[in-house]
Formats: sequence, structure tokens, C-alpha cells
Amino acid sequence: MIVTIVGTGLIGGSLAITLKEKGAATKVIGVDQQAAHLVRAKELNIIDEGASLEEAMKVSDLVILAIPVDAMLKVLPGIMDNVRPGQVIMDVGSTKQIILQLVAGHPNRGRFVAAHPMAGTEYSGPDAAIRNLFTHKTMVLCDVKNSDEDALEIVENMVDQLQMRTVYMNAEEHDLHTAYVSHISHITSFALALTVLKKEKESGRIFELASGGFESTVRLAKSSPDMWVPIFKHNRSNVLDVLDEHIHQLQQMKVLLETEDYDTFYKLIQKSNKIRKILK
Amino acid sequence: MIVTIVGTGLIGGSLAITLKEKGAATKVIGVDQQAAHLVRAKELNIIDEGASLEEAMKVSDLVILAIPVDAMLKVLPGIMDNVRPGQVIMDVGSTKQIILQLVAGHPNRGRFVAAHPMAGTEYSGPDAAIRNLFTHKTMVLCDVKNSDEDALEIVENMVDQLQMRTVYMNAEEHDLHTAYVSHISHITSFALALTVLKKEKESGRIFELASGGFESTVRLAKSSPDMWVPIFKHNRSNVLDVLDEHIHQLQQMKVLLETEDYDTFYKLIQKSNKIRKILK
Repeated sequence: MIVTIVGTGLIGGSLAITLKEKGAATKVIGVDQQAAHLVRAKELNIIDEGASLEEAMKVSDLVILAIPVDAMLKVLPGIMDNVRPGQVIMDVGSTKQIILQLVAGHPNRGRFVAAHPMAGTEYSGPDAAIRNLFTHKTMVLCDVKNSDEDALEIVENMVDQLQMRTVYMNAEEHDLHTAYVSHISHITSFALALTVLKKEKESGRIFELASGGFESTVRLAKSSPDMWVPIFKHNRSNVLDVLDEHIHQLQQMKVLLETEDYDTFYKLIQKSNKIRKILK
Repeated sequence: MIVTIVGTGLIGGSLAITLKEKGAATKVIGVDQQAAHLVRAKELNIIDEGASLEEAMKVSDLVILAIPVDAMLKVLPGIMDNVRPGQVIMDVGSTKQIILQLVAGHPNRGRFVAAHPMAGTEYSGPDAAIRNLFTHKTMVLCDVKNSDEDALEIVENMVDQLQMRTVYMNAEEHDLHTAYVSHISHITSFALALTVLKKEKESGRIFELASGGFESTVRLAKSSPDMWVPIFKHNRSNVLDVLDEHIHQLQQMKVLLETEDYDTFYKLIQKSNKIRKILK
């Protein structure tokens, strides 16, 4: 199977590496707006060759879109209009409703499969691509009833070869749940980084004390705005709901500290400890 | 050197393991209010024997207090009154001002060294104790001018044997900085866990999608309230300041999303990316 990866960054590059390694792809073609990314992806042996989207569409069995969700909106209509018979188009974007609205009712809608691998790191670009990024992680497939059976099967087989677990959801559920388990984590990390960086200006010694706990809560703040602003834009309403709730929880804790109601604070922490049953 | 560890949990237990391994302690005596912890610490070979605080004080060269900071306030006065000549008392609590106020002016103040290892995990109890928890981490020593030279030297040598980096600060600086790089991280994690757990009640599918990013920002929410409520209590004023600033940052992001000012949001994320220069 010839696979084209549009966007040879962290996700696209990691997919390319693993698909080649597992034999799922006999050849990987890279497409990237940034010429430097293509050159680097070739150097790193992530892709076999670079091409324009038009050229790549002509020869590939599977086209995987791994670009920021706003860029997806720009290229997807042209791709959908030019799908060849038997060809499968798949996106791996972090939001799903707006993308699926865009392809809804398209004559080639059946050739499209909407996916979201729940895996990543805070780094970006071809150099961030790694082997085994997806192993034992979850791949969400959305609104699969609107995909052709054979197109879905090709993607499902690929997900198996990536050693991923598949979860099926509709786009609405997906966008709601990812707001809770992914998007809000990024917002809190960005905000935490800003809080601490602001203080650092006054006192350069803060970071002498930073340890694992701090790094853990703040590492996502290294993530690229090119990827994340479009996600927040696409999923604005869900993200705002979760952000509201999160600010409310923080304000509640603030009031408990202000009024020195440590008993209630203790109980809140105990309640939050229930996250133990969910995290390994 | 005979070392007594008061509190055979994560920090005390990990210290005991490493001090024995490095030969810094010829014998480790465990003291713990919870009899079950002492039994378990003995079973795990973390301590050589258990004893009462009184017995242990009579025979040990160094007494390390590794208990929650509120419990510290209760036992410290009795310990300070009964220090034997040449004996060193050291605490490893997460806040410093209140503890140092308590021992200020005590006739045996010189025998006391205030320390805080910037290392830990979200687990607690003797079973959480691990080797190398402290390797290449930072040990903060506070207000060392008030410690006797020989007492400080014993602690500094021990810190070297733990392969830790030493940072010197006064108690005020310490409590301010830890509010930024440790205490606020725990508050945001607790709040994030509560936010998500609340939603889970309505929709059990949320956690099917949880991945590394979520786990990273929320893992500290597994931390014990027995340890953390006293820390927030001791460092209330600093924690409130940082929490205020953090809520302000989140509210700013909320307004930007509400008004769809994505350009400013982009710039904020770029600014927060500067955390890259601090985190490895």
C-alpha cells in the first residue's frame, strides 16, 4: 500500500515511521507546505520521497492528513473532489465536528475516515517523530457509518498494525470528551507557565526549585500554538464549558483557603484522589 | 552514623534506603505514629528497627523529620528540648517559615538544620519509598546561618552522598518559590481532577480517551490530603497570591476565546512556550 502523509510533523512522521516498520506501507510519500520539513523528513528516513499533494493523490492508496485542523479545512475540499476510485482519505485531527461538517454530503464522503490517535508529545516537526508513539494507545474513529465499508476496513487494519485500541464515537461525543481529557490540560499548562514566567521576571531563583511535579503539570505548555489555537477555535464551545468549570473549582479552593476551611479542602482533595481509579 | 527517620513514608523511606546504601547511615531507626507503617518499613528492609521517638533520640546521631508539616509542629518542641550534645535534628518539610519560627531562639537552635528535598511522587507510605528518588535533584537548605557549623556540615555531607545539588535560601524565599513551582501545580491538578470527575458522572466514556498529556497534568491529584492540606495552611498567603494570578491567566484565556481573539491567544501561547528554556 502506498501511503501519503500530508504534514510530516510529530503525528504524521511518527505514523510514517511505524507504518513502514510494520509493513503496512510499502512506500511513504510526504507532502508538506514547509519545504524544509520535507527535506528533513527525507534525511531522517521518515518518508521515501516528497511530492506535491496533486502528484501524491495520483499514486497513493491511502492519504493521511496530519496537519493543524485549520489547515485541514483548506485542503480537504480539494482532496475530496479528486479522490480516485478505491482511494481512502483519513484525517488524524484533534477535533472532529467541523471537519465532518465540511465533508458531509460530499459525493466521495464514503472514502473519508475520521480518526484521532490519542497520543502525542509537546514537541513538533519531523525531528519530533518517534517510533512506538501509538503503541497501545487509543485511536478514535468517528461517525464510521458514513464511511464505505472497504475504506473503514483499510483504516481498521492499519490501526491494528499500529497496535492501537479502537474506540468508536460520534463527532459530537469526541469533541466533548477531548475538551475534558486533552484540551483543558493544555490550557491549564499554558496558564501555569504564564503564571510562573511572570513571577520569574521578579525572581530568577524560582526555577532552581522546579522538580518533577512542576515539570509534569507544565510540560504541555511547550506545545505549538500553530496546532493548538485552531483546536481551541474548532472546539470553542466545549472548551469554554470545561474552562468555566475548572475556574469554578479553583475559585472554590481559593475561598476555602481564604476562609481557612481546611476540613472542606481536605474532603475536596480526597474527592480528587478518586482520579487514582482512572489513571494507572 | 545512626540515623533516625521520623515518618517512614515516601520521603523518609526513600532517604532511609539511600542513606543505608551509600553507607552514610550505619543503622536506620524508624519512628512512626502508625504501627503498620513501621512493620511494613521493617519488612521492606527500609529500616533496621522501629522504636519510640524517646528511645531513638537517645541513640541516634541524626534525627530526620519526614512527617506532614502540621505533625512537625507538634513533635518538634519536645525534640528540641531533648537534643543531646553533638546530635543533629533535620526536617525535610515542604514549608519552612512556620517551622523555623517555632525553633527560633531555642537554646538548641544550632543543632537544627532546615531542609527540603525537591523530589517526590504522588504516592505515599513505606511502599512508595524508592531508591534514587533524590539523585541529581535539589536539596534546599534554609537559614543555615542559624545552624551550628558542625551540624550543617553533617547535613551537607549527607546531601553530597545522596548525589543532590544544594541550594541555600532563607525561609521566606523558599516558601514563595515553592508556592510557584510546587504548591500551585498540586492545586491545579486537584482542581482538574475534580472538573473531569464531575463530568465523568454524566458520561463514563471520557476516560477512554485519556492519554499521556492528561495523565501528566492530573497525576499530582493522587497526592495525599494528609500531606497537602497542612502545606497549603502553612503557606496560605503565598499560595493564595499564586492562585489569584493563575485564575487571572485562565480568565484572560476565557475572554480571548469568548471574543474569538485568536491572535492574542496565539501570542499568549507563544509566550508560555518560553517555559522551554527552563524545562529540559
